[in-house]
Amino acid sequence: MISTFLKTSVVLISILFTFLCNGQTKKENSARNWPNGAQLVISVSMQFETGGQPEGAESPFSGSPLPKGQPDLPAESWFRYGANEGIYRMLDLWKKYNIKVTSHVVGEAAVKYPKIAKAIADGGHEIAAHGISWSNQWNMNYADELAFVKKGIDTVEAITGKRGVGYNANWLRRSPNTLKVLQELGFLYHIDDLSRDEPFITKVNGKNFVVMPYTLRNNDIVNVEGKHWSPDQFLWQLKMEFDQLYEEGATKRRMMSISFHDRIGGTPAMVRAMDSFIKYTKTKKGVVFMRKDDIAKMVLNDPKTPIDNAEEKYNN
Amino acid sequence: MISTFLKTSVVLISILFTFLCNGQTKKENSARNWPNGAQLVISVSMQFETGGQPEGAESPFSGSPLPKGQPDLPAESWFRYGANEGIYRMLDLWKKYNIKVTSHVVGEAAVKYPKIAKAIADGGHEIAAHGISWSNQWNMNYADELAFVKKGIDTVEAITGKRGVGYNANWLRRSPNTLKVLQELGFLYHIDDLSRDEPFITKVNGKNFVVMPYTLRNNDIVNVEGKHWSPDQFLWQLKMEFDQLYEEGATKRRMMSISFHDRIGGTPAMVRAMDSFIKYTKTKKGVVFMRKDDIAKMVLNDPKTPIDNAEEKYNN
Amino acid sequence: MISTFLKTSVVLISILFTFLCNGQTKKENSARNWPNGAQLVISVSMQFETGGQPEGAESPFSGSPLPKGQPDLPAESWFRYGANEGIYRMLDLWKKYNIKVTSHVVGEAAVKYPKIAKAIADGGHEIAAHGISWSNQWNMNYADELAFVKKGIDTVEAITGKRGVGYNANWLRRSPNTLKVLQELGFLYHIDDLSRDEPFITKVNGKNFVVMPYTLRNNDIVNVEGKHWSPDQFLWQLKMEFDQLYEEGATKRRMMSISFHDRIGGTPAMVRAMDSFIKYTKTKKGVVFMRKDDIAKMVLNDPKTPIDNAEEKYNN
Amino acid sequence: MISTFLKTSVVLISILFTFLCNGQTKKENSARNWPNGAQLVISVSMQFETGGQPEGAESPFSGSPLPKGQPDLPAESWFRYGANEGIYRMLDLWKKYNIKVTSHVVGEAAVKYPKIAKAIADGGHEIAAHGISWSNQWNMNYADELAFVKKGIDTVEAITGKRGVGYNANWLRRSPNTLKVLQELGFLYHIDDLSRDEPFITKVNGKNFVVMPYTLRNNDIVNVEGKHWSPDQFLWQLKMEFDQLYEEGATKRRMMSISFHDRIGGTPAMVRAMDSFIKYTKTKKGVVFMRKDDIAKMVLNDPKTPIDNAEEKYNN
Repeated sequence: MISTFLKTSVVLISILFTFLCNGQTKKENSARNWPNGAQLVISVSMQFETGGQPEGAESPFSGSPLPKGQPDLPAESWFRYGANEGIYRMLDLWKKYNIKVTSHVVGEAAVKYPKIAKAIADGGHEIAAHGISWSNQWNMNYADELAFVKKGIDTVEAITGKRGVGYNANWLRRSPNTLKVLQELGFLYHIDDLSRDEPFITKVNGKNFVVMPYTLRNNDIVNVEGKHWSPDQFLWQLKMEFDQLYEEGATKRRMMSISFHDRIGGTPAMVRAMDSFIKYTKTKKGVVFMRKDDIAKMVLNDPKTPIDNAEEKYNN
Repeated sequence: MISTFLKTSVVLISILFTFLCNGQTKKENSARNWPNGAQLVISVSMQFETGGQPEGAESPFSGSPLPKGQPDLPAESWFRYGANEGIYRMLDLWKKYNIKVTSHVVGEAAVKYPKIAKAIADGGHEIAAHGISWSNQWNMNYADELAFVKKGIDTVEAITGKRGVGYNANWLRRSPNTLKVLQELGFLYHIDDLSRDEPFITKVNGKNFVVMPYTLRNNDIVNVEGKHWSPDQFLWQLKMEFDQLYEEGATKRRMMSISFHDRIGGTPAMVRAMDSFIKYTKTKKGVVFMRKDDIAKMVLNDPKTPIDNAEEKYNN
Repeated sequence: MISTFLKTSVVLISILFTFLCNGQTKKENSARNWPNGAQLVISVSMQFETGGQPEGAESPFSGSPLPKGQPDLPAESWFRYGANEGIYRMLDLWKKYNIKVTSHVVGEAAVKYPKIAKAIADGGHEIAAHGISWSNQWNMNYADELAFVKKGIDTVEAITGKRGVGYNANWLRRSPNTLKVLQELGFLYHIDDLSRDEPFITKVNGKNFVVMPYTLRNNDIVNVEGKHWSPDQFLWQLKMEFDQLYEEGATKRRMMSISFHDRIGGTPAMVRAMDSFIKYTKTKKGVVFMRKDDIAKMVLNDPKTPIDNAEEKYNN
Repeated sequence: MISTFLKTSVVLISILFTFLCNGQTKKENSARNWPNGAQLVISVSMQFETGGQPEGAESPFSGSPLPKGQPDLPAESWFRYGANEGIYRMLDLWKKYNIKVTSHVVGEAAVKYPKIAKAIADGGHEIAAHGISWSNQWNMNYADELAFVKKGIDTVEAITGKRGVGYNANWLRRSPNTLKVLQELGFLYHIDDLSRDEPFITKVNGKNFVVMPYTLRNNDIVNVEGKHWSPDQFLWQLKMEFDQLYEEGATKRRMMSISFHDRIGGTPAMVRAMDSFIKYTKTKKGVVFMRKDDIAKMVLNDPKTPIDNAEEKYNN
């Protein structure tokens, strides 16, 4: 009975999947457009933020906030989950499949949990920047913003030995000066742009700066916390997006971006969804998981990389 | 093991179809009620709006607006996606299946991205009107509304060579004068009505005017952005609606309306959902995808087209 | 090929439900507890309300209301859908399976669309009461409430020839006097109670009055409009609830209540969901679809019907 | 068409076999880390609260509250469902599978429905504490909080003969004093912490106190009422979480926590979901369902239990 149940369940799921999503197997031998010959590059962002959150930070409890100064103990315990369980569970997953990801590390999170920051770096993952703390950045002047970003990378470097070259602003909201600040600090790229499914070059003070596509679509905090998706919905989103981009990747340079936060993407069902997704991608040739700094270096001076100066009025 | 799975697969495919899609194979030879003999007419609306949005326009970021004058850079990049990726991805899909759609083009979007407007027209798609800009129209007086609509079609015609004969108001909210305005400007039809699953005639100043059914049900902005559906939910909606209307189409004139917006329906997973849906419709006979202007011309003087003057107090 | 699919589907559909819902087939021959020997009684409520809605009534547009007096034309067209398409589509479905339902008819809807009210009655369905108009009833005094309810049944009787004996208040919100009002007017039952999965008797002025279980769980307006479910989710809810209640029905009296509103449940995908659900129930023995007045008559004086006077302080 | 399905099925079967079943059969003989040798401990919380709710308590009706003093009759009937149907349905389910759960009993609910409280105790389930009433606890001073908790356990003990040793605060929101209060009253553990997937020890006034992991992820009130999930989504969440934790359980101590409330988890479709889930867990070896008091006793003095004093500033 049970074995029948399992077999039929599995077959049913496979059929369901075929039913909804067939057609993605064409053109596997077409021209490839990434310098490394990939048909599709996938990059995972693993945000490590827990411990750096301010009082009242967004959580399942923040909708009915307690009076200022009153500790919200279950909310605080919810955040600690990211440090106790979430990051380590994800690290185990990346290791299982030998995938290297980009971790956006909030400075104060690394200060609070240095072992975790070091474990991320020791796993071969990119240590990227995410500010010194959870704070609005779009409203800072140039000097303050530079200090804010610099303190973040200095702090995290002191702990991990790695200096960030990629940037992610709080809720993506950078200021008009952010790219200039980043360039002054030696950054190669930022990710707070949703305009393309591939990285592009934008000119900042006349020099190349890489804009890496980020995602609200394959983003745990947006869809699971914000939109209240169940983990099976998240998995469908990943697979359907993959199928389309992989097919397009036969003739165009295509990149898929995924975002997982310590306390959300690090929960058991979400890691299970990601595990299933990774397995699914392994059935296709030419799929590569990469760190964003490696992608940035690969495309920075590649003549096939598109140039887009849509924000040039801010970047000169 | 695999062969068992395969055998079971054959059987289970049938169950799956029975499960949610059964019943639609009856009466395939019954009377057909469209002039062209179709059992079901499907029409896709592809809204091209990006570039015309006002500051603070509805986006994943508009729930927590920035102070007036402060550029919301990730929100702007989210809109640009429609121009960089969304419309082109959808154009590729329509081409793959040789489908012609109706594109509702905001005047200012065409001004900002003339190449895209031309690419739509060059693909054989209908260039329909959607106002000169993203603005409330229900609160304009007659003269202002006429100028607003006229400027839109003049502008888009100057760019694409095509003059709109069909209209879609911002969020469907037209004024009591809109149909008279449209008639004065030579329009054949409008779509801002949800009252039927087939086009109908309404009298405007005593003359025939076509009302084309629009949809909130098969509408990306309503369901994916507004209701937070995942793409697999959207696909189920399309298939279940299709199954019912196709079956009804054996004995009645039935039309299915679908709406995709550049930056939402143009994302990879949504285009994958639409691709799967189109494939699914190909398994039935008598399904035709049409532009709305062609539908309007087909029904305008057809005696089987229903007449409905529910809004006659406004239209005389 | 299709016929092979259909033949095998009956046998194997249970496999599909093994996937998520196995186990419901036990005890089919156990004691049955309904007077008519059913294992499960299902009753559908079909609300006919369109045409009676006040300005600004709940619709997909009511979240951003227009100024008072400004007609909301797409919202009005959305309501008309219930009259043009919704009720007729559902009537076709009930006829296809020879199911009789209970229709809660708002008085003003019948006045506006008398043909529809008559078509419901002519189909053999119960004409039940739903007030003369869409208005709060919980805040009326006894005399006003009695006049409100009486005007509703008088009006609908004049149109359909049928006098309601069952009541449904606007959003279920009755006053403390409602049951006494209903008893004075000769009603047999009301449905605005969510406390049991079977009908029960409550004493009103010492006499038996039937309370029929209503549902927020299998309710289109609550789940599809309110909770934003897609139609496949609604179908899962129906099937999973059915599986459990059917199993329990082997040893207890169990009733399943379903609610469909003209403009919501009457859409193509929702009628398709209901069609699939009805087919699914046909695979079990002892499932009966009934009108609520017939159920009320069956249980009113049956000694096995539970008595529950939880609201007795209002009913003496 | 079919051959396409079959071909794709061949490719996908192994992937999707993985999707439901992957990984968790590995290492079944590895080191187990629970004292009782389990690979995964699952504990269900069954909240019995109905009857203790204050006026206007959270319900499907509380979003549009009636004026103070006006009885909200359908809302009250919705709560009564938990007493009439919900708890008994769940008790039947636990009995069917011989599972013992932890029931968090609100004092006033037991007063109102003593038979139900006794039925829970007589079923062999743990009677745990949940306060004397539905009230904020985080804002009480030490003496008031102690009296509030004590009155709850005294009241429930008088009815059931069982004195609670585990605590669950209203919406998890305890005060900084709660653990000291609980220790003074002889409690062994509390559950209002989300930071780990296994129980841990925290020091309270220097003595061991057990913190049992609770869940917002497998929680009916959070996901079904709050997030509007359909029951199939809830079932996917349970299965995907189970698959991951079970696999991890081969090498680590892992616990899965599930929460069902009388009027929500006790509905037919949710009990059907839980029934399917329990069946699913039976396909794996080493899965044990336990009461939380038994778990607390098992880990309290076990040297492998982690110690975490993250809140030590409050507990000395």
